[in-house]
Amino acid sequence: MAHEKIPYKIYLSEEEMPKTWYNVRADMKNKPAPLLNPATFEPMGFEDLRPVFCDELIRQELDNDTREIPIPTEIRDFYKMYRPAPLVRAYCLEEKLQTPAKIYYKFEGNNTSGSHKLNSAIAQAYYAKMQGLTGVTTETGAGQWGTALSMACAYLGLDCKVFMVKVSYEQKPFRREVMRTYGASVTPSPSMETAVGRKILAEHPGTGGSLGCAISEAVEVATSTPGYRYVLGSVLNQVLLHQSIIGCETKIALDKYGVVPDIIIGCAGGGSNLGGLISPFMGEKLRGERDYRFIAVEPASCPSLTRGRFAYDFCDTGMVCPLAKMYTLGSSFIPSANHAGGLRYHGMSSVLSQLYHDGYMEAVAVEQTKVFEAAEQFARVEGILPAPESSHAIRVAIDEALKCKETGEEKTIVFGLTGTGYFDMLAYEKFHNGEMQDFIPSDAQLEESFAKLPKVPGCDA
Amino acid sequence: MAHEKIPYKIYLSEEEMPKTWYNVRADMKNKPAPLLNPATFEPMGFEDLRPVFCDELIRQELDNDTREIPIPTEIRDFYKMYRPAPLVRAYCLEEKLQTPAKIYYKFEGNNTSGSHKLNSAIAQAYYAKMQGLTGVTTETGAGQWGTALSMACAYLGLDCKVFMVKVSYEQKPFRREVMRTYGASVTPSPSMETAVGRKILAEHPGTGGSLGCAISEAVEVATSTPGYRYVLGSVLNQVLLHQSIIGCETKIALDKYGVVPDIIIGCAGGGSNLGGLISPFMGEKLRGERDYRFIAVEPASCPSLTRGRFAYDFCDTGMVCPLAKMYTLGSSFIPSANHAGGLRYHGMSSVLSQLYHDGYMEAVAVEQTKVFEAAEQFARVEGILPAPESSHAIRVAIDEALKCKETGEEKTIVFGLTGTGYFDMLAYEKFHNGEMQDFIPSDAQLEESFAKLPKVPGCDA
Repeated sequence: MAHEKIPYKIYLSEEEMPKTWYNVRADMKNKPAPLLNPATFEPMGFEDLRPVFCDELIRQELDNDTREIPIPTEIRDFYKMYRPAPLVRAYCLEEKLQTPAKIYYKFEGNNTSGSHKLNSAIAQAYYAKMQGLTGVTTETGAGQWGTALSMACAYLGLDCKVFMVKVSYEQKPFRREVMRTYGASVTPSPSMETAVGRKILAEHPGTGGSLGCAISEAVEVATSTPGYRYVLGSVLNQVLLHQSIIGCETKIALDKYGVVPDIIIGCAGGGSNLGGLISPFMGEKLRGERDYRFIAVEPASCPSLTRGRFAYDFCDTGMVCPLAKMYTLGSSFIPSANHAGGLRYHGMSSVLSQLYHDGYMEAVAVEQTKVFEAAEQFARVEGILPAPESSHAIRVAIDEALKCKETGEEKTIVFGLTGTGYFDMLAYEKFHNGEMQDFIPSDAQLEESFAKLPKVPGCDA
Repeated sequence: MAHEKIPYKIYLSEEEMPKTWYNVRADMKNKPAPLLNPATFEPMGFEDLRPVFCDELIRQELDNDTREIPIPTEIRDFYKMYRPAPLVRAYCLEEKLQTPAKIYYKFEGNNTSGSHKLNSAIAQAYYAKMQGLTGVTTETGAGQWGTALSMACAYLGLDCKVFMVKVSYEQKPFRREVMRTYGASVTPSPSMETAVGRKILAEHPGTGGSLGCAISEAVEVATSTPGYRYVLGSVLNQVLLHQSIIGCETKIALDKYGVVPDIIIGCAGGGSNLGGLISPFMGEKLRGERDYRFIAVEPASCPSLTRGRFAYDFCDTGMVCPLAKMYTLGSSFIPSANHAGGLRYHGMSSVLSQLYHDGYMEAVAVEQTKVFEAAEQFARVEGILPAPESSHAIRVAIDEALKCKETGEEKTIVFGLTGTGYFDMLAYEKFHNGEMQDFIPSDAQLEESFAKLPKVPGCDA
């Protein structure tokens, strides 16, 4: 096989690795709308956010102008432990599909957290440490974000308190133990440790908890414990900024070989991976330098971009966090069981929502049985066992490659492979046994949820 | 931090990757003893082995002379999917230990099988395919080898039939599902599919099975099904040959930066990883070109090198496979529960046994609580969550680095990090909860087992 000159995997050298994050907001004509105070509906400034987030992260959250933000040396040293992530040329998949398309994927799963989440976890933990804080709190569902944060905190010697949705805590003990290996304190939520937890337990004894409840507990502990702040793994502007390392590395690697992608594809839950992957390419598009097709892939069971409203909404189901303007299914929307836990979020990053609203990006929703078919096909030829979340992007990448097979076009497709599925084997088992079902919310269910969107003066949902 | 010029991770380019395996037997003055027929105790030649193994693998098994064996292009292409494995400079561990020692580890866990096993799985599957065979059979305990073989067979379009010890099949469904994702047929052993399985089930209804039984079933199916052969993941000479890719890559990476190790450390179960890692370095030592210290690390619960006999013994507890001369605890020895399933083997590769017997290698046995302490310490500073097996090497690498701290010596230590522990979280949980125990066989237990060693004419055990 003559493989041109492009290797199976492109690893940047340490010298080639990005030294700055790229802030796509600097190139957006329509900036993402500001966060609003959940009580007053007033835009939140630096001082308003200080009780919850650490100072430097608030600055990054609010900074819509600085295009390049230097990555501190300590964070770059940490990145060197598990980065650069390889950009893989999917020669085997191309051959299997018999497509003229050229397929690349950026693989973020070569670290213990199993996903890209570590890119922002280390940044958030670092700035907390620099501010002299002693600990951070967060919530976790399936546990990828909690694992990433635990790893970052263990490295920096920072306390890490994770509220894990009780049903996951009990049913997924493995991720819990990974977090404990990294010294994190993991509490099943709702717990008796917080006022909000006690209230929920009194009202709903025996509840298995929810992400919304876990967020509320984590925020309560962060704001009531001296030296603590709360951190979040997706949705926020700062998270997309840190995750731009994915796209910056990808672009450097492609540029090195003179490859220009036609289509860039990523799965989208809160938007952290997709936003990070496309950022520098989107910058070129926004500046009118080059055109790309961007495709966000979401689960048909939780289709915020393809079926949601562009409106101000609560980021949490507990309605204690700031409001963000975004594509949302409504914070009261409860997605049906879908094995891609990381994509079960009612809203979407404000940055991506604005870009989608302004026509810079496409979105498609896919059903999970089709996603697992793609996952298995990919695993068998490319070796990597993908996470269900990542497999949403694989599904659409394969679909696009098969279109090229029909038309004969030699398009270059790049997709983000956010992580591995080692902790998702129960879902694979259901798939193998033919027991997996697809869930699609009814219009009536969505209308009911939209009706509960907050009424923000001056904005209509 | 001025880190000289050595990066955190050394990745060879595709051009730098080894094109040949290194056969350490070629440089051994005392060759490993031949396999013996279990019925006649006669040495087994090419024709004797053909019903069980495929032809080219038998040639490799018997070849004590050819030093360099070319790696076929197709296997090298497969290697490019998940290799080169990074050689990591453990800067963070060194700093944590405050040692003047320089520590490197070769990390083999960046693939879905989670370990180095894939290196030999693809080679064995490839030669089976080239011979026109349609399928292979094997046994698996915890499932790493079965996973690796499933991946290789999926890639080549070869049937893969895995007999998985029933108790593991039921208690560890995740690995089973990984194998199913790769299209393997996974049968709990003992099964009703084989004569030996039916016999055992009749005698011991409700048994949870054993590795010995699973081997017997796999061999029976391989030898009674047209177009099938049996493959094995460790112990055999051919496996060490394939695994020499680990050591060859390591040596090329070290040579590139002018680094010469003083000590090379690996965990040892059947010997596949340790043998592979040390091979090219051992070659230099055997040829008198350079001296190294080699340390094999085994669990105190299954101490074949440190407390076993150097004798001919059965490779399986079912006593249907050829006899090998090796350090052994006796094929009737049943190791106490130890969470490093991959190290629970009664014997040791004939090649390593001979080298140890001839004084070219040291061995130490370590207790598992100490191993998990090292694993957790390593995970927190280096990020990677190690497999319990691999953590045996970490334990001794840390111990050696701490000795350097006392003496002030700037030794260079290289160890093999064979894989990740994502499927071993139950063991980590026991460790976190203080419920982990150490097991050390009594002298009486070993004597009882030694008494059952086969009496081979001309050899005393």
